[in-house]
Amino acid sequence: MSLAQEEARVREANQRFYQAVENLSLDDLEAVWLPSPACRCVHPGWPPVEGWEAIRESWSRIFESTNDLEIVLDQVTVHIEGAVAWLNCLARVSSAAESRIDTALLCSSNLFILHDGEWRLVLHHASQLPDPMDSPQTDLIQ
Amino acid sequence: MSLAQEEARVREANQRFYQAVENLSLDDLEAVWLPSPACRCVHPGWPPVEGWEAIRESWSRIFESTNDLEIVLDQVTVHIEGAVAWLNCLARVSSAAESRIDTALLCSSNLFILHDGEWRLVLHHASQLPDPMDSPQTDLIQ
Repeated sequence: MSLAQEEARVREANQRFYQAVENLSLDDLEAVWLPSPACRCVHPGWPPVEGWEAIRESWSRIFESTNDLEIVLDQVTVHIEGAVAWLNCLARVSSAAESRIDTALLCSSNLFILHDGEWRLVLHHASQLPDPMDSPQTDLIQ
Repeated sequence: MSLAQEEARVREANQRFYQAVENLSLDDLEAVWLPSPACRCVHPGWPPVEGWEAIRESWSRIFESTNDLEIVLDQVTVHIEGAVAWLNCLARVSSAAESRIDTALLCSSNLFILHDGEWRLVLHHASQLPDPMDSPQTDLIQ
């Protein structure tokens, strides 16, 4: 497989990750993350969460307090070195909860390792950036 | 070389990185970062900086506005897969500028690749966490 093909596979794995988050689906997340105690996840502003079990629980808490999520990725870059790939991207996240829409611009570093022929997520570090679109909160109920 | 020895070398490279920052030394930073256009650096709250030249310039700007820095690392974990190592840590940063001391608790993901037998930094993603010590700003001049 060429490097370009392998990079495309990493981008697909990354898409599946964000699609799983958009779908608020723990099962879909579980198919992307490597279920390992070595995994680490840094949600924006949270202390690091270590190990797949704790990471799964953290997403469960996020999903419980979210009704709807839309994520648009930008500036995706991929590097591969052997069986390790790291992907950086911006993610514009719109979330709806309790009649309000919030938007946030996140910067993410995602690290995948090739495990049984599949690129599996082992590190997700997301942090919030000042949003150049400076979107105000939008009240759905006027 | 055993895995434990290799992990120790990654920790040493990481120490050199933070020592270079404490020393406000661009030359020392240059000895740790891989001088590659593929490097990426996410300073807390900044948009991503890409490529060593731009990353060097970003540190130069930080160093210019800083008089003194002290960094204490905690919860350092290292994983190695082939020629790639990723290290996560917390960094408590105390900085002095203009008669004030500010402290911040940062969470960092640092990615190193083995290049000519040396572990070189290719990705640094740092983001601020709420500080459980809740340190107030300290005025040096009362």
